[in-house]
Amino acid sequence: MASEAALTFASSRDRAAELSFRMNRAINFSAGPGVVPEPVLEQAKQDLWDLFGSGIGILEHSPRGKESDRALAEAEADRRAVGGIPDNYRVLFLQGGATTQAYQVPMAFLPDGRTADYFHTGKWATEAIHEAKRYGNVHVAAGSAETKFDRIPDDGDVRYSDHPAYVQFTSNNTLMGTEWHRMPPLPPGDAWFVCDASSDIFSRPIDVTQFGFIYAGGQKNLGPAGTVLIIVRDDVLDRQVRDLPWMLNYKVQAEKESRFNTPPTFGVYLMGQTFKWILAQGGLEAMRERNEAKSRIVYDALDASGFYRPHARTQDRSHMNITFYTPSPELDAKFIEQADAAGLKNLKGHREVGGMRASMYNAFPHHGAEALASFLRDFEAKHG
Amino acid sequence: MASEAALTFASSRDRAAELSFRMNRAINFSAGPGVVPEPVLEQAKQDLWDLFGSGIGILEHSPRGKESDRALAEAEADRRAVGGIPDNYRVLFLQGGATTQAYQVPMAFLPDGRTADYFHTGKWATEAIHEAKRYGNVHVAAGSAETKFDRIPDDGDVRYSDHPAYVQFTSNNTLMGTEWHRMPPLPPGDAWFVCDASSDIFSRPIDVTQFGFIYAGGQKNLGPAGTVLIIVRDDVLDRQVRDLPWMLNYKVQAEKESRFNTPPTFGVYLMGQTFKWILAQGGLEAMRERNEAKSRIVYDALDASGFYRPHARTQDRSHMNITFYTPSPELDAKFIEQADAAGLKNLKGHREVGGMRASMYNAFPHHGAEALASFLRDFEAKHG
Repeated sequence: MASEAALTFASSRDRAAELSFRMNRAINFSAGPGVVPEPVLEQAKQDLWDLFGSGIGILEHSPRGKESDRALAEAEADRRAVGGIPDNYRVLFLQGGATTQAYQVPMAFLPDGRTADYFHTGKWATEAIHEAKRYGNVHVAAGSAETKFDRIPDDGDVRYSDHPAYVQFTSNNTLMGTEWHRMPPLPPGDAWFVCDASSDIFSRPIDVTQFGFIYAGGQKNLGPAGTVLIIVRDDVLDRQVRDLPWMLNYKVQAEKESRFNTPPTFGVYLMGQTFKWILAQGGLEAMRERNEAKSRIVYDALDASGFYRPHARTQDRSHMNITFYTPSPELDAKFIEQADAAGLKNLKGHREVGGMRASMYNAFPHHGAEALASFLRDFEAKHG
Repeated sequence: MASEAALTFASSRDRAAELSFRMNRAINFSAGPGVVPEPVLEQAKQDLWDLFGSGIGILEHSPRGKESDRALAEAEADRRAVGGIPDNYRVLFLQGGATTQAYQVPMAFLPDGRTADYFHTGKWATEAIHEAKRYGNVHVAAGSAETKFDRIPDDGDVRYSDHPAYVQFTSNNTLMGTEWHRMPPLPPGDAWFVCDASSDIFSRPIDVTQFGFIYAGGQKNLGPAGTVLIIVRDDVLDRQVRDLPWMLNYKVQAEKESRFNTPPTFGVYLMGQTFKWILAQGGLEAMRERNEAKSRIVYDALDASGFYRPHARTQDRSHMNITFYTPSPELDAKFIEQADAAGLKNLKGHREVGGMRASMYNAFPHHGAEALASFLRDFEAKHG
C-alpha cells in the first residue's frame, strides 16, 4: 500500500482505473462483506496451500494443532496490540454474525422483568430491540426513527430508565451512514455499555475501558463474514442470568479460548492477518487518518454540489458509509448504473433506504475515494 | 485426481512421499478440519482475488449481489445433485458447527415434557444428549458407553420410548471410528430421524427420504469449519415448538434462503466448490468406492498384524476414521512421532481415546492410505 500512497495522480480517476485494471480489481464500495487488504489476500492464497511450511493449508489444520495454536495466539496478541485491550478483558472469536449477538446478549445478560436501554438509531438497533424483548423489557433511551435515522441523538434528548441492566448502542449505522463521534452519556447505577461496533471497529482509536461488551461482525473492517469479534470485561462474564447452551455461554467460550467446538479457523486466521496489516499501516491512529481523508474527499465533493443531497446530519456523518441521493430515484438508478460501468461497484443504497451508499472501510483504497469524487463531478456536469 | 489414480507405485510409500514433496503438501490425517481437494484449493486461490471476473474476490462480495446469488445457487443446485435431495427438502447453510445443532434441534423440536430418543454412541451423542435435556426428556434408545463406544448398537438392543418427538443418531463417530452401515430400526408413532452426519456426509450414497433432519459441520467432507449443512423436510419446519430468535428459527432461515443475515460466504462458496469436485469425481457412488478402497488398505494392514489392535468392532468400522492401538501407550507415542517425521501428519488419537486415529475423508488421497499401510508394516517390523 505504501507504493500506492506514494503515487500522485494527474487525473485521479484515470490513474485509479489504470491501477485497478492492472491488478484486475474493481473499486468495490460494498457495505459488507467489504474490501479485504490486498496483501492479506496474497498471504491467504499462499496459506490456503501451506501454512507455516507445514505442508497443510489453513483450512485443513486441526483447531488444536500447533499451527492453529500459533495462528490463534498471534491473532489474539495482534488484536490486543491493535485495540489496546487491557488484561481484564477477554477477546473471543465466535460465529453467527452480529445478528446472533442481537439475541445472545439479552439471553445472557437481561434478567426476566429487568429493563435494558437501547439507542434506536437504525436497522441493527431495531433488530436488537426486537430480539431483546424476548427476554425482558426494553426502554428506548433515545432514537431517530422519526427523522429516518439521519442522526445520532443529542445528549440532551437521552432519557435512561431508572435501573437498566445494560445500555446498548450501535457505534456506526451502516444503512443510514451515521456514526457516534462521542460516547453516549453515562448510564445510571451499575449499567454498562454494550456496543455493536460491527461496521466501525478498529477504524479509529478505541478506549475499550469505556465498554462492558463490544461485538463486531468480521466482514467490514476485520475479515470474512462468519466470524464475530467480542471484547468482554471479566466481571461481565459473571453476570450471565440464564442457563445457557454451551455454545451461547460466553463464560464457557472464554474458558475454552473460543474453541469449545471447532472454531471458524479460516475466519480467525484472516482476522489475524488483518490485524497484522493494521499494525503494519501504523495502527488505529493511522486507520483514522486514512478513513477521515477518504471520507473527506467524498463529503467535500457532495457538499460542493447543489445537486446531491447527503442523508446524514453533518455532525453525525459516518466515515465508513456515505449515504446520499441525487434529485430523483430515476437519476439515482442512472448514477448507480453509470458508476458500475465506470468500474465503481456496489454503490446502490440499502433496499430500505434507497439512493446511494459508498462504503469505505479500512482496506478501501484512497484512489477509490478520489475516483468517486471525480465521478460525482462528472455525473453532475452531465445531469445536473 | 485421475492422473494420480493412474499411477502405479513400485514402492507406494516412496512414491507418495515424492508426490507430496513435489506439491509441498503433507499427508494429513487430521480428523477435522480435514483435507480439502487440491483442485478446490487452487480454484479458491484464484477466486479470493477475483470471482467470476468481477474484479472482486469471494470474501468481498455482498451476500445479495449477483455473484453471491450465483455462487449460492450453484452450491445449492450442486448439493441437490450430489445428494439426490428431493424438492420437499430444504437445504440450509448455517453457522456454529454441529455443536450449535446439538442445542438448536431440541430447542426447536423437543416440546416441554415430551421425550426425544437418542443413540448414545460417542462424544457427539453425549453432548447432544446433554443439551437436549435443557428442553425436555431424553431417552437413550441404545448405546455403547460400557464398551468404550467400540460399536454401533445391534437392532435387537434398541428400545425406543413410547412416543418420542424424534430419534437422533450420529451416523459416524469420529473419535471412536464407528459408523452406521444401516439405518436404525423405524421409530414408533410419527417420530422422524435426526442425523448428525458431520463426519460422513456425502462420503457414500444417501437416501435423504429416510430422514426428517440431517446436519453436518462442514470441516470433514464439505469444506471449511464454520459452516453447517442442513437438510430438512418441509413438514418438519412446521413442527417448531418454541418462540425462537430469528437466527435459531429454521423456518425463518429457510424462507430467507440462509441469508437472514450475512452468511459465511467463503464457507458456502467452498462447500459449493467441493460439491462440484464430488460431481466431477463421479458423485457419491465414486466417493464410496474411493473411501472403501482407502480404508480397506489400512484395515487390511491392521488385520494382517498381531501387533496392532483396532478399536472398533469389525462390522461397525468407519470408512472415515480408523482407530487403533499398538501394544502400549509408549509405543503409541513413538508411532505418532515417527510417522510425523515420515510426513504422515496428525495421526494422534483424540485426547479422550488415546492411541492412533487415521482420518481419511473424501479428499484424502489414495496414496496416503498406501503410505500409512506401508508405515504400519515398517513400524511393526522394527518394534513388534
